[in-house]
Amino acid sequence: MPEFLSLLPPDEARELLFSKLDFENTEWELVDFLHAANRVSAEDIFSPHPLPNFSRSSVDGYAVRARDTYGANESMPAYLNFIGEIGMGTHPEMEIGVGSAILIHTGGMLPAGADAVVMLEYVQRTNGGEVEVNRPVAAGENVIQVGEDVQAGELVLPKGKKIRPAEIGGLAALGITGIRVARAIRVGIISTGDEVVPPEKDIQLGQVRDVNSYTLAALVESNGGLANLYGIVPDQFADILAAARQALRECDLVLITAGSSASVRDMTADVINELGTPGVLVHGINTRPGKPTILGVCEGKAVIGLPGNPVSALVNGLLFVVPLLERLSLQTTNLVRASIRAVLSVNLVSQAGREDWHPVRLVRKESSWYANPIFGKSNLIFTISKGDGLICIPADATGLSAGEIVEVYPY
Amino acid sequence: MPEFLSLLPPDEARELLFSKLDFENTEWELVDFLHAANRVSAEDIFSPHPLPNFSRSSVDGYAVRARDTYGANESMPAYLNFIGEIGMGTHPEMEIGVGSAILIHTGGMLPAGADAVVMLEYVQRTNGGEVEVNRPVAAGENVIQVGEDVQAGELVLPKGKKIRPAEIGGLAALGITGIRVARAIRVGIISTGDEVVPPEKDIQLGQVRDVNSYTLAALVESNGGLANLYGIVPDQFADILAAARQALRECDLVLITAGSSASVRDMTADVINELGTPGVLVHGINTRPGKPTILGVCEGKAVIGLPGNPVSALVNGLLFVVPLLERLSLQTTNLVRASIRAVLSVNLVSQAGREDWHPVRLVRKESSWYANPIFGKSNLIFTISKGDGLICIPADATGLSAGEIVEVYPY
Repeated sequence: MPEFLSLLPPDEARELLFSKLDFENTEWELVDFLHAANRVSAEDIFSPHPLPNFSRSSVDGYAVRARDTYGANESMPAYLNFIGEIGMGTHPEMEIGVGSAILIHTGGMLPAGADAVVMLEYVQRTNGGEVEVNRPVAAGENVIQVGEDVQAGELVLPKGKKIRPAEIGGLAALGITGIRVARAIRVGIISTGDEVVPPEKDIQLGQVRDVNSYTLAALVESNGGLANLYGIVPDQFADILAAARQALRECDLVLITAGSSASVRDMTADVINELGTPGVLVHGINTRPGKPTILGVCEGKAVIGLPGNPVSALVNGLLFVVPLLERLSLQTTNLVRASIRAVLSVNLVSQAGREDWHPVRLVRKESSWYANPIFGKSNLIFTISKGDGLICIPADATGLSAGEIVEVYPY
Repeated sequence: MPEFLSLLPPDEARELLFSKLDFENTEWELVDFLHAANRVSAEDIFSPHPLPNFSRSSVDGYAVRARDTYGANESMPAYLNFIGEIGMGTHPEMEIGVGSAILIHTGGMLPAGADAVVMLEYVQRTNGGEVEVNRPVAAGENVIQVGEDVQAGELVLPKGKKIRPAEIGGLAALGITGIRVARAIRVGIISTGDEVVPPEKDIQLGQVRDVNSYTLAALVESNGGLANLYGIVPDQFADILAAARQALRECDLVLITAGSSASVRDMTADVINELGTPGVLVHGINTRPGKPTILGVCEGKAVIGLPGNPVSALVNGLLFVVPLLERLSLQTTNLVRASIRAVLSVNLVSQAGREDWHPVRLVRKESSWYANPIFGKSNLIFTISKGDGLICIPADATGLSAGEIVEVYPY
């Protein structure tokens, strides 16, 4: 029986995989900006014009020449000629001369000659067609200058940036209604095992329904990928190889679940080596769950063998598949994982030298979150369904103590 | 000119809004489990059978009667009769009698009579058709018992739970291929303003393109809602009322941007009061940006007036619209917001009594994240596009100091 000769730490394993892939192969597609949310920009986008492209008032008030208000106060107001109102969305034809004021609304265009806006609350209209200004304004006060948001030609959306609602708004503001984004990454998913049947089937004693195809498909699609299911393949080398060949041809990334361990039934490593060069890069990762995970590259595409245990497959999907999808999508921003800080409720033991990922449930007590570890074999899908997130016990620790603060990463 | 008489803190404002809505109105729809990710279960789901529904081996090894191995060690092994192999996915017809052993693979069904599995590494096959066991096993060792994952009738997915990849896997394992989920919440979005034009139009001086319809639509859809855009309505009471009436009829929630402030052009509050009872609940929230936000309820549906400034509209969308979408979707789990802890890089001043939300950019220095505040008027959409997340300056503070640890909430 083959053994895992050397186990790589997860970070090193991931780096080794990434180093053998050429991320410049990712194709782009043009999408309407409305449908660009959560996609990754495949081009640098520069502003076609300054934003705003005219000076705007940021308040309701009176557009004036600032110098006409200098020295004004409540006992000695400045009196300016009221010469009209600026309609919203219009280019004012009026011009401000010495000693005059025009009513302007928030967002209105400053008329020629004006360089500031006095807020409504510091102005009284007189019966004699004048406005009485009780406070001076400085030049530029309450005015958004041309290009204050962005200048013409400024980089507004770099290649590699994940597009959020804020970027959608920025594109709308600039009238950029089409954008090149990284094409969604097609992920081929193959389940293996003579005992595995599809979820819609009644199970006979000895059979189990396929879980991993569906957890992984949901994980892939929640992270912007497209999942292609290649079904359940029996434990026959030729069958697994044929399914993997088809998936490799049709997809950008292939996942094979079960068969990654080191028993006689486990043929994933051999399949990956047969599929293309360089084949298996890593077989065995120093983590729990997920030790038997295989990382390979065949003809320029990643092929990953995940353990058959549902918890191991999902946790290793989070550790390896999600970061790979991000890299393949060209994403270079928003890669920091957010977490919830919580107090660990019990002691957790781990083996020194191995990185452990443990599902926990978050429970609120007084004003703190507590992380309650969920104990259960990694074969049990509901172990992970009962949890809210994972905590990491690093390789250099032999466990964590009750009362320690942990970072809980939601899944 | 009307003034904001009293400003409510955001938490109180949200609670007041929620208290006037009946969340039991939310409808459900039946979806295939494949498409249930990120939806919220609208029913309690119980396990139709135990999982697993037969005792399974959790290792590769030999199924035995545990008592036949008691006392075995390397110098004094137990010798058992090798009587065959259990095919994966089959119901073994063989039965284990006294002193016998059957080869079994991980996930295989335990034969009648067996109560434990000895791992392959502790067994040698002899030429004489026997297996030599070097180590005792306890009853139940290396066996997943019937119902160890879940019992028949156990609650496996409660109403109100957001469905993640783990739950999709759980449904697959139990053969539950259809599930009732909360119907996607339809959100009607109305932009107002004589100066606002659609993004695909060339702008004339004085005009600006609509930003808020698109940031809010992207925010709604990223949070599981369906955005219905009702376009840009001029600053006319009758026009805004007509658009709001249509949106209220066709949607579950209505957002109106701009016109929420207190100037003569601002008619959103009057529109909401005309639209239905009880009308405006909150006008003015003690937060920055977003003070003019309006929360209302008309004929059982929420109607929210958001400021026209793009940053204010987006931040208040995060503060009010996202939590409301979650409640309307019946979601009761996974409501804790994850964050990234960072060191604030400069002092930030705020007004005591007001809750401030400030966009920051995350920058890595040595082994820490630093939060660099982005300064810019809240009219400038690229202010928020340049940031990675928001930090909160609570109402009881007058600012935050450089070097303080802050929680950055990604948007």
